[in-house]
Amino acid sequence: MAKDMKVALLLDFYGDLLTDKQRDSLDFYYNDDLSLGEIAANLGISRQGVRDNIKRAEAVLLDMEERLNLAAKFAEIKQRLASVRNALDVIDQRNIRIYRSNEINESIKLILSELDRLDKLNE
Amino acid sequence: MAKDMKVALLLDFYGDLLTDKQRDSLDFYYNDDLSLGEIAANLGISRQGVRDNIKRAEAVLLDMEERLNLAAKFAEIKQRLASVRNALDVIDQRNIRIYRSNEINESIKLILSELDRLDKLNE
Repeated sequence: MAKDMKVALLLDFYGDLLTDKQRDSLDFYYNDDLSLGEIAANLGISRQGVRDNIKRAEAVLLDMEERLNLAAKFAEIKQRLASVRNALDVIDQRNIRIYRSNEINESIKLILSELDRLDKLNE
Repeated sequence: MAKDMKVALLLDFYGDLLTDKQRDSLDFYYNDDLSLGEIAANLGISRQGVRDNIKRAEAVLLDMEERLNLAAKFAEIKQRLASVRNALDVIDQRNIRIYRSNEINESIKLILSELDRLDKLNE
């Protein structure tokens, strides 16, 4: 079973769609890097049970991403927000050095606070 | 069966998780405003079958939103992007009327193009 880091990311988006045992198995396996044996001991199920949970849960996550495309969407949102931040910084620097407009400064602050909240939604 | 407009919105987000008959039933019912009888005729199933599809599909959509919260998240993103646009317009107006900085103008254009793409992702 090769660890696919994409699965760890999808777990953040779709973890609430898994059963508790499936989610815990994936979490131990991908985020805590436990062995199948260690996970089996933690969950009080067989090693094969853990393996089945992980396989099944991975299939659910990949299927959900194929249908909803959320992880890809949020990755694009993140990238575009970073690009907005960069362009805003150009305006900010120019305003600080040359124009010193309080109105522009206030608008930049407002946009930055919205960007912070958008980044948080996207975590 | 009271029509809940929230369902029409959730259909956009989670429609791909429904069966074809479920999705078509909801689409005819909410978006095309057809009667149960008309939908039954269109899909070649019984009126009760349509009713069952709609009930089941609505339950799936509401359950998905409870777990993933996507519709609420995207509504918030939309609102914050509009707020960014408004604040950017203040900067733009001030720049056009007073400072006439080409560098600020270019940065504003870049931000606007990112906002357009973000709005599109959010549709």
